[in-house]
Amino acid sequence: MSPRSGILYLVSGPSGSGKTTLCRRLSDEGEASYAISCTTRSPRPGEENGTDYFFLSIEEFKGKITAGEFLEYAEVHGNFYGTLTSEVINTLEQGNDVVLDIDVQGAAQVRATENLTVKNALVDIFIMPPSKEELLKRLTGRGTDSDEVVTTRMKNSLEEMEHWPKYTFRLLSGTHEEDYARFKSLLHGERLRIIRHH
Amino acid sequence: MSPRSGILYLVSGPSGSGKTTLCRRLSDEGEASYAISCTTRSPRPGEENGTDYFFLSIEEFKGKITAGEFLEYAEVHGNFYGTLTSEVINTLEQGNDVVLDIDVQGAAQVRATENLTVKNALVDIFIMPPSKEELLKRLTGRGTDSDEVVTTRMKNSLEEMEHWPKYTFRLLSGTHEEDYARFKSLLHGERLRIIRHH
Repeated sequence: MSPRSGILYLVSGPSGSGKTTLCRRLSDEGEASYAISCTTRSPRPGEENGTDYFFLSIEEFKGKITAGEFLEYAEVHGNFYGTLTSEVINTLEQGNDVVLDIDVQGAAQVRATENLTVKNALVDIFIMPPSKEELLKRLTGRGTDSDEVVTTRMKNSLEEMEHWPKYTFRLLSGTHEEDYARFKSLLHGERLRIIRHH
Repeated sequence: MSPRSGILYLVSGPSGSGKTTLCRRLSDEGEASYAISCTTRSPRPGEENGTDYFFLSIEEFKGKITAGEFLEYAEVHGNFYGTLTSEVINTLEQGNDVVLDIDVQGAAQVRATENLTVKNALVDIFIMPPSKEELLKRLTGRGTDSDEVVTTRMKNSLEEMEHWPKYTFRLLSGTHEEDYARFKSLLHGERLRIIRHH
């Protein structure tokens, strides 16, 4: 193939949609680089700095906001999450694809960017749980949170789901294997787009 | 999945690109309906009316031109080829995808259509042979044509190849299996596009 520019996949969807698992697997199988986010929330057991997130203090995070280093950032459930522009651009310019596991607010910020490398690379996709019943089952299924936390997360998920029409692609979640196969088709198809070839 | 409207794939590429084999296989495997073209050329051995082409007399073909029944038509190597609008629309409206194995002139006519069902369904892709050397090999390899015919076809193929930048997608041909897998990814990815869902 002729050299091509990398594609930036914005992957949104409510908690329980399976989007994080999909993005991780794309990265694990070498289909795209998983852009590691910065966050001010505390690491959960097993999470590692530089692998799962860049864990920053609130002061560090705000310093990077002021310095304009974030492609997007948002406050969710009282914590900051954000993606460094440099993380994304470097990968795209090497001709590699990037997946961003990102909430709807963050996706809106990325779309509003004036950085042309990012603008031309954008493909956004919303992962939808198959039904409200299945979503509740998935959110409850973790078994690690109180009823109150589950209720709040369900409410947030339903609100998040209302944003799907802003996206170009939508994947209605089925089994993980189905979801992954369809997501990978999207990636492979988009690579044939002529504007991405030099 | 929610109901969706069908997609119309315009598949162009020079003789020797393998586009016809790709389109046939998509149809054979039920991925998309193969839109059968009308032609005024004589059937080759083994070709059947209504399966390979609708074989029309020149008078019949011109009658349908006058009646505005063609989505596109063209004269190639002294013969007429064309696609009936009704053939395409009926399939799209049932939510099924259509592949049109079409030359660059025909593709330009389809793009210029004012029929909104067709306009909204369009995805065009150009199949490129991997190199001029390989193209010549493929065109010669048939062994059924004279040197003069091969030379003419090579010239036509090279001219046709210059039109690839007018297309949205480009598939650089490798092995048939590679080509088919990538083509199928494009189809499956495009089905996730939100504008196609009701």
